[in-house]
Amino acid sequence: MSDLLLALDFGGTKLSAAVLQLQDGRPEQEWEAQQRAFSPAGADAQYSIKHMLSMARELLRDRQPSAVGVSFGGPVNAVDGIVRLSHHVPGWENIHLADLLERELAAPAALDNDANTAAAGEFRFGAGQGYSSLFYITVSTGVGGGWILNGKPWSGANGMAGEIGHMVIDPDGPVCSCGKRGCVERLASGPSMAQNARDLLQAGPEQLSQASILLKLAGGELSGITAKIISQAAAQGDLFARQVMEAAARSLGLAVGNTANLMNPQLFVIGGGVSKSGPLYWDSLRKGTRETALPHIQTKLLPAALGDDAPLWGAAGLALDLRTS
Amino acid sequence: MSDLLLALDFGGTKLSAAVLQLQDGRPEQEWEAQQRAFSPAGADAQYSIKHMLSMARELLRDRQPSAVGVSFGGPVNAVDGIVRLSHHVPGWENIHLADLLERELAAPAALDNDANTAAAGEFRFGAGQGYSSLFYITVSTGVGGGWILNGKPWSGANGMAGEIGHMVIDPDGPVCSCGKRGCVERLASGPSMAQNARDLLQAGPEQLSQASILLKLAGGELSGITAKIISQAAAQGDLFARQVMEAAARSLGLAVGNTANLMNPQLFVIGGGVSKSGPLYWDSLRKGTRETALPHIQTKLLPAALGDDAPLWGAAGLALDLRTS
Repeated sequence: MSDLLLALDFGGTKLSAAVLQLQDGRPEQEWEAQQRAFSPAGADAQYSIKHMLSMARELLRDRQPSAVGVSFGGPVNAVDGIVRLSHHVPGWENIHLADLLERELAAPAALDNDANTAAAGEFRFGAGQGYSSLFYITVSTGVGGGWILNGKPWSGANGMAGEIGHMVIDPDGPVCSCGKRGCVERLASGPSMAQNARDLLQAGPEQLSQASILLKLAGGELSGITAKIISQAAAQGDLFARQVMEAAARSLGLAVGNTANLMNPQLFVIGGGVSKSGPLYWDSLRKGTRETALPHIQTKLLPAALGDDAPLWGAAGLALDLRTS
Repeated sequence: MSDLLLALDFGGTKLSAAVLQLQDGRPEQEWEAQQRAFSPAGADAQYSIKHMLSMARELLRDRQPSAVGVSFGGPVNAVDGIVRLSHHVPGWENIHLADLLERELAAPAALDNDANTAAAGEFRFGAGQGYSSLFYITVSTGVGGGWILNGKPWSGANGMAGEIGHMVIDPDGPVCSCGKRGCVERLASGPSMAQNARDLLQAGPEQLSQASILLKLAGGELSGITAKIISQAAAQGDLFARQVMEAAARSLGLAVGNTANLMNPQLFVIGGGVSKSGPLYWDSLRKGTRETALPHIQTKLLPAALGDDAPLWGAAGLALDLRTS
């Protein structure tokens, strides 16, 4: 049997593929080769599949993988290997992606959504190694998560577990894209943090004097404010940016504390772009968590170790399981 | 081996014991015999143990049980069979209850906390039969819960999972006994519902005219208001009581919806005295759940089937597992 595994990650705007060489039955902790491409505007499912297959074939150089693992950025039926839909890319409805890849690549394929693959990736190859239960949270454009319980993924009765982004923590809060008020995603995602900064500055221009660094970094325009610029300004001493960032981190911390009370996992692994906002962000996140969790409940938070590659590593794990099953 | 199982439930104010006769290796769906006693004020751990043993011996009538299962109303170390403490009864700190019962009753004993035993009881013998994942919630003096995932109890990294009562769902809400604001328990427990009614009537006496049925049932005194009286008044058409009850039910529903988003179990089983508040209560509970859960997440809610006996049935299950292991 071939010692090669193929890992594929269909993200909303990004396609990633990697080939891993097994050593003594374990994947090496480095990719043998990896490729990444950003999808153009207007790309659909057929474009994505065609482009991904071409990347995969290039990496494989006529060699045969023993199994293919796939992460998909949207709801899937993992049992049957079927994509339900994508919220970002048209044409993905009910595509039998695992079957299609099996035919094209002549190797068994397994599929899961990106929250579960990222959680599994961090669990098997990243920050969660050595633990048996963890909740992985990604905070970027949205806020989502994936569970590992008793060493195995937990995806729920209809594959929807992990939606911490739509936990309501303030029924009087701002309206979320899902229609509810005060969802974690509306308070703590990157775009929400930027939106909150803009809203506050528009409603209270007297705060502009405290936001001079932020505005300078944003090119003098409210529309130039992003979560990344907020964290940069906060690190440079901008008081307003710091308050906005800390409020978002504490909102996330409250949700993490609620989750600790409800599920009491050994570990929380926090990834995604917003989690790279620096020590001030993490202080507020940990404080919010600690204040919300009951006294006897442990709340260990670690930054994700695999960054944007977590779903791809989880996909590699799916391939490894197929090969050894 | 004896066909008798002994099940014991050490509650905060109540001791219950039951003997079950096995038929074809399964416990009958009725107790062979059951006893219940309320602890006097000032009762401590030694009193409870002595009284429980005396009840057990009376039920056993010199027969030997093959195993003993124990439910305890407070935090325990289930692995080692040790009670950590009781929040209601003094003297329970670090008592090796399983060992003690094994010596006294000459049969192996296993122990878990009442949220887990109630969840397991409903799962194996009650409303959760045939499901593989459920969250059991009890709403009475407090609000707590227990998990079944993949057909097994999930009690968390340090045995604290299930604390839905201390999920914060309104950071500006009233202060909970735990010190935080807007915990589910402070919005939806029986005493909280009564407190909310009293607070609203004191703050807005103009509402008294809408609360005439409630006040009559409460003996004309605000201090006479209880959750049970609120649900009775609501059923009899008291508008104020109905609003108070529906607000509490919707708060619980919001927490159930949050839990559905996070864990996506097949089923929620709702028990405890407050869950017996009638159809209006359940309508609001289901509405709050549905409004909070994401559209594709299933939210099936069923009333508990075993009532106050759920922990005792769970204890019987522990005994059965010991016998067959």
